Amino acid sequence: MRPVPVDLEQFLHRLADASGDAILPFFRSRLTAHDKSQNGAFDPVTEADKAAEVIIRRMIREAFPTHAIHGEEFEDEEGSSDFRWVIDPIDGTRAFISGLPVWGTLIGLTRAGRPALGLMNQPFTRERFWGDGGRAQWRGASGDRPLRTRSCDSLSAATLMTTTPAMFKGDEADRYAALERQVRLPRYGCDCYAYCMLAAGHVDLVVESGLKAVDIVPLAPIIEGAGGIITTWSGEPVREGGAVVVAGDQRAHEAALKILNA
Amino acid sequence: MRPVPVDLEQFLHRLADASGDAILPFFRSRLTAHDKSQNGAFDPVTEADKAAEVIIRRMIREAFPTHAIHGEEFEDEEGSSDFRWVIDPIDGTRAFISGLPVWGTLIGLTRAGRPALGLMNQPFTRERFWGDGGRAQWRGASGDRPLRTRSCDSLSAATLMTTTPAMFKGDEADRYAALERQVRLPRYGCDCYAYCMLAAGHVDLVVESGLKAVDIVPLAPIIEGAGGIITTWSGEPVREGGAVVVAGDQRAHEAALKILNA
Repeated sequence: MRPVPVDLEQFLHRLADASGDAILPFFRSRLTAHDKSQNGAFDPVTEADKAAEVIIRRMIREAFPTHAIHGEEFEDEEGSSDFRWVIDPIDGTRAFISGLPVWGTLIGLTRAGRPALGLMNQPFTRERFWGDGGRAQWRGASGDRPLRTRSCDSLSAATLMTTTPAMFKGDEADRYAALERQVRLPRYGCDCYAYCMLAAGHVDLVVESGLKAVDIVPLAPIIEGAGGIITTWSGEPVREGGAVVVAGDQRAHEAALKILNA
Repeated sequence: MRPVPVDLEQFLHRLADASGDAILPFFRSRLTAHDKSQNGAFDPVTEADKAAEVIIRRMIREAFPTHAIHGEEFEDEEGSSDFRWVIDPIDGTRAFISGLPVWGTLIGLTRAGRPALGLMNQPFTRERFWGDGGRAQWRGASGDRPLRTRSCDSLSAATLMTTTPAMFKGDEADRYAALERQVRLPRYGCDCYAYCMLAAGHVDLVVESGLKAVDIVPLAPIIEGAGGIITTWSGEPVREGGAVVVAGDQRAHEAALKILNA
């Protein structure tokens, strides 16, 4: 398979610039969150979410009319190539509406079904995390830095993050709780930001469940590019979301899988 | 009682500038967290924490030698006036060591035991929140804005934040859980940042327990200056930390107290 052309990565940054410009004016404005879920659960969508996805989709269609597009807010667009974009304009909408700067715009590109490029953009803190599975980079106010996970040889040394333990239902909740009891420091909150902090070597494990493809596919090339491991709870590759175990060190990953499947 | 002189507020900003400069180089560096607790619980202290408090204390002693100083990291310094500074150089050390930008430097000034001025500085996001009980302000990349809590007429409309539900022990855990079941959106994480988002009108309730004076006294003039209410779980003024209920709207505060004391 040919390597992904460099201009795709440059294009990814143009998508991030444009989506950040679309979203930022809405952050911390007094919006009404709409409830799009059928069953009445709280699932806020902001105007910013849709505005950003419209812009991202338009830029992709213009630049790469043969690429397929899968996004959080609108219908799938079919393509005629093996490239498919996977977009979550605001991952962490609950953080967004609470004013917290730990949401992010996720833009991923898969090729023949496998994650090839991914980017997380946080326009309020002016940070960007991106990778291609082989390397990963951070860009912020102080310049560019390579992303590299840290070593972690046991659960008792690990910082574990999850957005909220309430995401685990039934048996999964017990298995997650068993893992949480083994780690040094559990922390909640943060959605995509947690995975990026793992890629940057500040967090050792992120364990979540019930993810959609748009929540995690764009993060995989960042995690793997920084040296991390990402699988489902049963140790399989993550292709369509679900329950994931992400670790910066293979030893922590194996130890976590063991507890989650005990 | 005389009003607090304006130059004290200007001095507060100089303390924030100096402490931010001291802390920021350590943020996201690969530090070893020391464990200062006696019983082995994880209580990280960074070099940044101590460096910032040393600088803040030195500036206070030089400018106001009659003022008392109470800080997180070092022994109390007695004063000969009715002013007392209350300092937590890094509130949210767990967020700090996890790379998350939701920690803050808290600097408060009490007069005759009552909170008179308070400031939260977040040097990574370049944000500052401060108040004097009568007004409160935000400063960020886009300039200065007054802080104002939002209205919230019932728990079913409320966003509730707490750093982690694990902070509630025994009976308190049940009372907190009962409250959480009544609100629209519970969110975890964030320490001081949560109180500032309440002051900014993005969050309706913050409920915590086991706080030290340094964790909350500097935030009180910001919360009250923005129109919020801060009491203990039993409805008393917060002077020395403990269990607190903070709301942006009196109606949400009353409803939360009712559930917590049912």
